Amino acid sequence: MPRARVNANFDSPNVDVMVDMGHPLLNRVVDGFLKVGGVGAVHALAQETYGVVRREEATKRSLELMAQRTGKEAVQWGLVAGVYSGMTYAMQEARGTHDWKNALLGGALTGAALSLTESNPRSDRIITGAITGGAIATAAEFLRNIT
Amino acid sequence: MPRARVNANFDSPNVDVMVDMGHPLLNRVVDGFLKVGGVGAVHALAQETYGVVRREEATKRSLELMAQRTGKEAVQWGLVAGVYSGMTYAMQEARGTHDWKNALLGGALTGAALSLTESNPRSDRIITGAITGGAIATAAEFLRNIT
Repeated sequence: MPRARVNANFDSPNVDVMVDMGHPLLNRVVDGFLKVGGVGAVHALAQETYGVVRREEATKRSLELMAQRTGKEAVQWGLVAGVYSGMTYAMQEARGTHDWKNALLGGALTGAALSLTESNPRSDRIITGAITGGAIATAAEFLRNIT
Repeated sequence: MPRARVNANFDSPNVDVMVDMGHPLLNRVVDGFLKVGGVGAVHALAQETYGVVRREEATKRSLELMAQRTGKEAVQWGLVAGVYSGMTYAMQEARGTHDWKNALLGGALTGAALSLTESNPRSDRIITGAITGGAIATAAEFLRNIT
């Protein structure tokens, strides 16, 4: 049963939103989508705000573009996180372990999925997106084991 | 004292190269540089090989470009990993904890360092690079806590 719980902790800027969908796989997908989608929205806002500060003018058009980019990046970053955390969780359950091979395959599928969200998806872009996604996820997995 | 140790495990395609520089911070930087630099090299090779397969021809020029890109990406990816793992390790030691704030600051510094490697670094690119680096590192830290 979908339930929503909001943990707001004002000691530190740390807001934990948790939606319980009743299945661990779904929970991870939704959790990744919400959290990383929020990071994507903040990223777009920060980039566009810096653009306004640098140009020293805020027009109606630049504010419209800011809102547009914020929504688009929130969905794209959230999609990446949802697909990646869902895929790696499913592979972890199936293989019984989590290693860089899970990260490689999850990243490749995530990269392919992200390239499908572009306005004009071509088959070669999907493959290059899959290669890059797999490489980035493997690199992140190696870094995670170092730090 | 710098020492090198090579662990090759042929049960699975897993090669662990460890160079002991005598200090944990330096070890992390070198470890990240070597491992993630290798991932960057494999990524460039895979992308260029796919390009050759797609165009159905391998010229002398395309092989030269492949070698060039492999070296460049190995250094860039290695630099990112080295700076990021060094920064997050130093902050973890200083603050006594590892959380998304370390990831945010480490990612921002890494993004700024990466934008300095471009052929024509401009101050606004360094700042947008820092914003994007911080956002990506924060998103990866959130994903790490989910999976």
